[in-house]
Amino acid sequence: MKIYLDCYPCFLRQALEAARMAGADEPGQRHLLEQVMNGLSEIPLEMTPPEIAANIHRLVRHELGHKDPYREAKQNSTQQALALYPRLKALVAQSDDPLACATRLAIAGNIIDLGLKLTYDLWETVERVLKQSFAIDDRAAFRASLKQAPWILYLADNAGETVFDRVLIETLDLPVRYAVKGAPILNDATLEDALAVDLDRAATLISTGSDAPGTVLADCSEQFKEMFAQAPLIIAKGQANYETLSQAGSRLFFLLQIKCPVIARDVGVPVGSIVLKCG
Amino acid sequence: MKIYLDCYPCFLRQALEAARMAGADEPGQRHLLEQVMNGLSEIPLEMTPPEIAANIHRLVRHELGHKDPYREAKQNSTQQALALYPRLKALVAQSDDPLACATRLAIAGNIIDLGLKLTYDLWETVERVLKQSFAIDDRAAFRASLKQAPWILYLADNAGETVFDRVLIETLDLPVRYAVKGAPILNDATLEDALAVDLDRAATLISTGSDAPGTVLADCSEQFKEMFAQAPLIIAKGQANYETLSQAGSRLFFLLQIKCPVIARDVGVPVGSIVLKCG
Repeated sequence: MKIYLDCYPCFLRQALEAARMAGADEPGQRHLLEQVMNGLSEIPLEMTPPEIAANIHRLVRHELGHKDPYREAKQNSTQQALALYPRLKALVAQSDDPLACATRLAIAGNIIDLGLKLTYDLWETVERVLKQSFAIDDRAAFRASLKQAPWILYLADNAGETVFDRVLIETLDLPVRYAVKGAPILNDATLEDALAVDLDRAATLISTGSDAPGTVLADCSEQFKEMFAQAPLIIAKGQANYETLSQAGSRLFFLLQIKCPVIARDVGVPVGSIVLKCG
Repeated sequence: MKIYLDCYPCFLRQALEAARMAGADEPGQRHLLEQVMNGLSEIPLEMTPPEIAANIHRLVRHELGHKDPYREAKQNSTQQALALYPRLKALVAQSDDPLACATRLAIAGNIIDLGLKLTYDLWETVERVLKQSFAIDDRAAFRASLKQAPWILYLADNAGETVFDRVLIETLDLPVRYAVKGAPILNDATLEDALAVDLDRAATLISTGSDAPGTVLADCSEQFKEMFAQAPLIIAKGQANYETLSQAGSRLFFLLQIKCPVIARDVGVPVGSIVLKCG
């Protein structure tokens, strides 16, 4: 998905939030915003929003000398989600269709997205998504592909959402390689965040090798790119994976909530929708 | 009220919306955003947000050669509000306390604010505001001041909101000078917008002489500044008048809805609040 001009205000907001999370004072925040505005004046329009976000957050981390401004926020999200794990497992166990239930839960967990909104009600979201109609519903194709695939590449999104991913992975009767970011970016899950929810017990953890949100293949490691090329089925979580991989073919299934009006317009569904879309 | 860094993303959003309203194509919109970002890198921090917004919207109008990008939007707001005028008058006529009712209606009309949000439900807002508790409630002081004042200076805010102002002015048993902007800025009411709702029948129409949102006294005409200095009581509608005049003294009564988180923090009340505040 290409960049839209509506993303510019959002990039400024994100840079400001990241600067505050990194503890910058007001002059520091302002200096950073000025640099971000200078940078935005020169971006090529063929870049995707996550590629630009990656540049902005690299600038924030570099300027403020802070490797991981969202670390504490990620730990909070993780703890909050972990506390729900037994309830999520019970929901799946009691369901007539555990796969359908766990798929919805994985989408519910996608509400955790600090790039967009700093607050959300996690359990309220679970209850909403369990009942909500899909705005795009490729669940039948997803189910059919799961029956054929010898293994799955699962592209993670955010810390905390990892708990919901774990519930889905434990419901799938298939080997899963769970791909996390190679270094901190926003509240995206890294190896540390995946280990914090014991995802290594449910899947093989791998790194994309990149610190861009979503999956910017050109920025990923050779090892990851090879695995991506070979994967028979890819579950791609969240908006940034859609933004970076929307043209990557029908092996991909995007599981996400639509939280931003620009993506809503691109996908052709309203903000607030839940989506399971074959690429 | 001083500028907050949170205003920067909002300025970009506003510039983009104005460019679209003026009919700019995508390269034109982008060029404009780049210029706005250059301008924002150099603003003095002691400016109020409306002063900066004034500069941005001057730039938009100049660059795109469009004198009044919000003209059609203002006409729509005006027609929509005018259609409610008989119902608003009936509400006041049936009220046990017409002044209290008309004051609430004037605050309800403040939902029309295209600088913040392009859509709103006007009648739903009327019904909400008629019941809502005041987050800041200087109604007693307002009522007392109205009893003493020989005349009132009424600082208008937006086109369409003018209809609600007219209802309040017709309820006051006092001569009113109704001050509109000297030239188009955002969807703020100008002389044309006030005349479109026959405000000249209810008040003496005057111009601030300025095209800044709110009331930037340094930018106003000498005639207006003199009238402002002499006014025994000033009703100041909307956020921008609060932002520009919050330090201007106890002759002022701010009637507004809190629609932005930055102003909410400055005033110390939640977004969505209704406020009648003595300056």
